[in-house]
Amino acid sequence: MQTILIYSGGLDSTTLLYHLRAEGQTVAALSVDYGQRHRQEVVAAQALCAALGVEHQVVDLRAVRPLLAGSSQTDPTVAVPQGHYADLTMKQTVVPNRNMLLLALAGAWAVSRQAEAIAYAAHGGDHAIYPDCRPAFVAAFAQTLALANWHPVTVLAPFLALDKAAIVRLGASLGVPFGQTWSCYDPQTDLSTGRTLHCGRCGTCCERALSFDEAGIEDPTIYMDTTYWKRVSLPKT
Amino acid sequence: MQTILIYSGGLDSTTLLYHLRAEGQTVAALSVDYGQRHRQEVVAAQALCAALGVEHQVVDLRAVRPLLAGSSQTDPTVAVPQGHYADLTMKQTVVPNRNMLLLALAGAWAVSRQAEAIAYAAHGGDHAIYPDCRPAFVAAFAQTLALANWHPVTVLAPFLALDKAAIVRLGASLGVPFGQTWSCYDPQTDLSTGRTLHCGRCGTCCERALSFDEAGIEDPTIYMDTTYWKRVSLPKT
Repeated sequence: MQTILIYSGGLDSTTLLYHLRAEGQTVAALSVDYGQRHRQEVVAAQALCAALGVEHQVVDLRAVRPLLAGSSQTDPTVAVPQGHYADLTMKQTVVPNRNMLLLALAGAWAVSRQAEAIAYAAHGGDHAIYPDCRPAFVAAFAQTLALANWHPVTVLAPFLALDKAAIVRLGASLGVPFGQTWSCYDPQTDLSTGRTLHCGRCGTCCERALSFDEAGIEDPTIYMDTTYWKRVSLPKT
Repeated sequence: MQTILIYSGGLDSTTLLYHLRAEGQTVAALSVDYGQRHRQEVVAAQALCAALGVEHQVVDLRAVRPLLAGSSQTDPTVAVPQGHYADLTMKQTVVPNRNMLLLALAGAWAVSRQAEAIAYAAHGGDHAIYPDCRPAFVAAFAQTLALANWHPVTVLAPFLALDKAAIVRLGASLGVPFGQTWSCYDPQTDLSTGRTLHCGRCGTCCERALSFDEAGIEDPTIYMDTTYWKRVSLPKT
């Protein structure tokens, strides 16, 4: 089966890439540069695909940025909130209609090349903040995509019922090189080395560090602030 | 009410622009350059919006073209079919997942600026060829958009039950300057004048000419081949 994977170069979608390949699927990866503050993820995606020999298409959608204002990830005037994801301020990181746009692009590419499926790595922990990671959204999208084209395309979102700690455990079992994946929403430059590091304070850094901790797996990530995620209050469950 | 209109500069969406404004809506128009063979429509859209003083955003999506191969409208190796739309060959003009992509972009812009609605001009005559113009697609898309974002956006497609002749009649009653709208999928250069003209032979030209004829309204369009639509057999109903 040929599957188009929406691929950010992050922990979740990299684990999904390894998972699909372990299932014997032929994967073509699609990354989108939409002018996100965290474009470092596209660099990570390119390196990871090159290492695996996976076909990879990076689409330059920076021209769309005027349509996506208001999010901290696409609007330089909005600061990236710090702390755990459950905080309401995290809604500032929501990019308007982002996942529908990415899925629509993946769907177009799948129809164009007659691929059987598209896949994305939305997971259970995303639901509270990101409406476009909820199972109801995925089901509605899949139905819409089926109606939008003559060629049928299946929508795969196998992590919908998993939390991020479970994804870390799965990734570890598949040999995912976690240290090469990129999550951070607010990349920082380490002035002593010139390297770009995970900030350690944004919602996705806190979630990443917490998930390794919960999974009982060593976190190879180099965070600028290594202990922030432990110092701030945990999200309420 | 503020509405984002997906605006091609064609007869249908221009009539919808006039219709929404006649209803008192504030319209912002969104045109997309996706590398379509018929980019002349974007030029028409710009001129028509400028004349009305309508806010207009043209998004350059040409980088997406590699994802849209296989259609005569985005792939220079596929010829534009000639004749009436009902012919099966017209499916070559279908751009993979095009309307979902355009609607997803319009949805993003609507959420970003907190507009109440998005609108597009799919009509009854489109259904047989374009799956993404069917009422079932529009309903499924509207549900998906509602689930994809916290801000609610209504999807307006008021021409779904109209045929193109009815749209011509409506446009005439609203004073639409039909001669300035662009439909043709295969623009031709008139070598004697240097002007870009409607070919008169592609599906959308045949449909356009036939619709004016059926509506009993004079067609101001200058076609390269002025009588082709009458010479070829009509679509079977």
